[in-house]
Amino acid sequence: MNHICSVATVQFAPVFDEIAQNFQQIESLIRDLDDDIVILPELCTTGYSFLNSKEVEGLALTANEFADFLGDYSVKNNNVIIAGFAEKDEDRFYNSTIALMPDKSYIVYRKTHLFYKEKYCFSYGDTGFFVFNHPNRNCRIGMMICYDWRFPESARTLALKGADIITCSANLVTPYWETGMKSRALENNVYVAVSNRYGSESRLLPDGTMQTLTFTGKSAIYDNHGITLQQAAINGDSIIRAAIDTNISRNKSFDELDDIFNDRRPTFYMNE
Amino acid sequence: MNHICSVATVQFAPVFDEIAQNFQQIESLIRDLDDDIVILPELCTTGYSFLNSKEVEGLALTANEFADFLGDYSVKNNNVIIAGFAEKDEDRFYNSTIALMPDKSYIVYRKTHLFYKEKYCFSYGDTGFFVFNHPNRNCRIGMMICYDWRFPESARTLALKGADIITCSANLVTPYWETGMKSRALENNVYVAVSNRYGSESRLLPDGTMQTLTFTGKSAIYDNHGITLQQAAINGDSIIRAAIDTNISRNKSFDELDDIFNDRRPTFYMNE
Repeated sequence: MNHICSVATVQFAPVFDEIAQNFQQIESLIRDLDDDIVILPELCTTGYSFLNSKEVEGLALTANEFADFLGDYSVKNNNVIIAGFAEKDEDRFYNSTIALMPDKSYIVYRKTHLFYKEKYCFSYGDTGFFVFNHPNRNCRIGMMICYDWRFPESARTLALKGADIITCSANLVTPYWETGMKSRALENNVYVAVSNRYGSESRLLPDGTMQTLTFTGKSAIYDNHGITLQQAAINGDSIIRAAIDTNISRNKSFDELDDIFNDRRPTFYMNE
Repeated sequence: MNHICSVATVQFAPVFDEIAQNFQQIESLIRDLDDDIVILPELCTTGYSFLNSKEVEGLALTANEFADFLGDYSVKNNNVIIAGFAEKDEDRFYNSTIALMPDKSYIVYRKTHLFYKEKYCFSYGDTGFFVFNHPNRNCRIGMMICYDWRFPESARTLALKGADIITCSANLVTPYWETGMKSRALENNVYVAVSNRYGSESRLLPDGTMQTLTFTGKSAIYDNHGITLQQAAINGDSIIRAAIDTNISRNKSFDELDDIFNDRRPTFYMNE
């Protein structure tokens, strides 16, 4: 199978509590994208600023429901679509991404590291980090979500499990993530594709104060050295694209004596 | 004890196989440095380009011998001096750093991740990553050496063991280390001080080809967000300085709900 894989990262600004409008927006952005992998932001069906799990309950979808919607485009364009959503599974809610395959099968990752008020709204992810094969390309994909970037263990685990590319569906709000994201690519010799949202969301809090979160845009695709291949602007809908080569991501040696995986010495690493 | 600690990072160009000259150079650079922590490059007594352990044998020092030399300056300036050297311990050789205290006691770190031809010259470090207290400041110091930066587990281990500052004595040759080093600071909320050498070393190899290694200078001190506080030029002797605040490095929460250490979920991290 082909070891060259085309990746498209979609940036837009979901509107909180407006599922129909967000679905329409997603539809118009991905309808004709036939790149091998298409990545959408975190919680792109609902917006971000949930304050409690009661609010999530009203907007969450089962993975099946979300797959029913996205699957049509995966079939039409013969690709893998990765997108963030508020997931309902019986009486639990997760901040998840779905990876939709062209045969309409799917796999779900549930966010491991919950950020800020997500802790009041979602259950901690129970899937852990895993890797799956692209059905049409010789490419292994690992998913993480937003704040997972802050923990080098997330990307490390995905890379040790064989990821060629790590996707990060995100609603990033701090100015620091670019430093970390580049390093995740470099230290693991993998590609990293960040689909971030832009825009702001304001919510009136119970204590009468206004909470405004501003998302940082700048969705990006980084190569295996952490070099930016393509990057979106801070604001605005955009689709950025790059071709990745999994022969590169699988070769962890950078000279005849050094290999960044074989050279690891886990006996000396603390992991409590 | 004072939680503000002054750090000086020394950059110079040791000459291979010229111990006396290197000692003189080190002496002239550190003689009057009374910063609380003074950091010198990797293998600063001998230069870098050893081809085999036989060559190391002729130039290696015991930790005691190196301490005898450096200790005078530690006593005089009442500080901790950290410096890289080729260490002899009975019939073994290590790529090590010594940390010299003002009472002439010392502690040695032996490089965990050997790079390139170091694999032919040195034994793999057996000390692992550890942290020690500055005797006069409320500051915990962890040491790593050069290629250790490439493995996020090195800095993570030091930070989890309580490091406020990670020192990296180095002879760096790739263009990528700045990306990684900034992330080590950011992802652990610690200060990172890199003492790198500059200049080139050429060696005629047994097969008749010439091996030239060019070191990248740009020694730097990074804050807990990975922001560069001070940085040296690519070439030239220099001493860069910054004051660090260990109240900052010990506070791993960045808002009322998030804490980068408490938020870790080691159950999901792979460490084989």
